[in-house]
Amino acid sequence: MGRTSDAREKIVAAAQSLIELRGYSALGVAEICKAAGVPKGSFYYFFESKEALALAVIDEHWAGQRQAWTRVLTGDAEPLQRLRLLFEETEAGQRAGQVSCGTVSGCLFGNLTLEMSNQTEAIRARLQEIFDAQVEMVETVVAQALARREIAVSDTLEAARSVVAQLEGQVLFAKLYNSTGRLGPLWANCLALLGARDPQEVPAGL
Amino acid sequence: MGRTSDAREKIVAAAQSLIELRGYSALGVAEICKAAGVPKGSFYYFFESKEALALAVIDEHWAGQRQAWTRVLTGDAEPLQRLRLLFEETEAGQRAGQVSCGTVSGCLFGNLTLEMSNQTEAIRARLQEIFDAQVEMVETVVAQALARREIAVSDTLEAARSVVAQLEGQVLFAKLYNSTGRLGPLWANCLALLGARDPQEVPAGL
Repeated sequence: MGRTSDAREKIVAAAQSLIELRGYSALGVAEICKAAGVPKGSFYYFFESKEALALAVIDEHWAGQRQAWTRVLTGDAEPLQRLRLLFEETEAGQRAGQVSCGTVSGCLFGNLTLEMSNQTEAIRARLQEIFDAQVEMVETVVAQALARREIAVSDTLEAARSVVAQLEGQVLFAKLYNSTGRLGPLWANCLALLGARDPQEVPAGL
Repeated sequence: MGRTSDAREKIVAAAQSLIELRGYSALGVAEICKAAGVPKGSFYYFFESKEALALAVIDEHWAGQRQAWTRVLTGDAEPLQRLRLLFEETEAGQRAGQVSCGTVSGCLFGNLTLEMSNQTEAIRARLQEIFDAQVEMVETVVAQALARREIAVSDTLEAARSVVAQLEGQVLFAKLYNSTGRLGPLWANCLALLGARDPQEVPAGL
C-alpha cells in the first residue's frame, strides 16, 4: 500500500464509483478494498465502519459539487441564466457519466436518500444538510431574479425547494430511462415554477 | 406452511414491507422467509430468484396503485381537481405509512428506480412500464384540461412527465426530511407547470 493518505483517497474513490454503480447496501468492505487496491486490514485504520466511509464519500462528492454549484450560481451571468447553466452542467455531467459507465448514474445524493435515509440517521442528517445547502444556493438566485421582477413567486424558499425537487425528479427519470434527454425540460419547468412562463421570452427579455 | 397460495402471498407481502423499510439489496431470502413465516425451502418453489420476487412485489404494488390512480383520475371531478385529489391521496398515503412505520417510506417505484434500475434490466423495464402508465394516465387528464382551456401547455406528454417528475422529486424530499408537509406544494407546482398559475383562481374558475 502507498502512503496512508493515498490509501484513504483510493478507498473513498473506489467506494464512490461502486456506490454510483450499485448502491451502498450491495457493497462489502472486502470488495471496496479490492477495487481500491488496498489490503482489507487498512480499511478500519481509516474508517470505523462502512457507514463512516459512506459519509466520507458523500462529503467528498459534495465538496466537488458545491464548488461547481458555487461557480455557476454566483457567477457573472444574470440570475435566471445561472440557473439555466446549472441545468446544462447537470445534463453534461450525467452525459459524461453515461459515456464512462454505460448508464446514467443519477444523483449520488438522491440515490442515497432513497436507499439509505430511513436506515441511518447519520446519513439522513448529512444528506439533509447538503440539500439544504443546495436549496439555499438556488434561493439566493431566485431572490435576485425576484428583485429584478423577472419572476413571480410568493415564497423564495418554497420556490427554490420546488426547483431542486424538479431537478431530482427529472434526474430519477434520466436514470430510469438511461436518457439524459429527460433533463431537457428542466429549464422550461424552472421558469414555469418561478412564474416566468415563456422560456422563449425570458432569455430575450434579460 | 398454509396453502401454497397463502405462502406465496405471505412472501410477497413480507418482501414488500422489508423493501419499503430497507431497500432490495440489503435483504436476503432467509430474512424474507422468516418475516413471512414460511420455510426457506418453499421460496424457490414460487420464485426462481430474488429478482423474480422483486418483480412480483412491484406488480402487486402497482396493481393496487393503478386501481387507486384509475379511480381518482377517471372520476367525475373536473380534470384539474382530479390531479389535486391524486396529490392529496398521495400525501395521505405517505402520512399513513409514516404512522405505521415511523418514517415516510417514499414511493416504492422511485426507491427501486434509484437503487436497482442500473443493475437489472428486468426491473428497469418493469419500472419504465409503470411510470409510462402513470404518465399516460396524467396525460389524459392534462389533455382534458387543455381542451377546456384551463391550462396552457404545448406538449401534453412532456407536461405529464414533468408533473410526475415533480411528484417523485417532492416524495424524495418527504422521505429525506421524514415530513409529509413537503408534499404540500404539489398542487400549486402542478398548476405552475401546466400554465394555470394561480392556485387560488383556478379552482374558483372551474
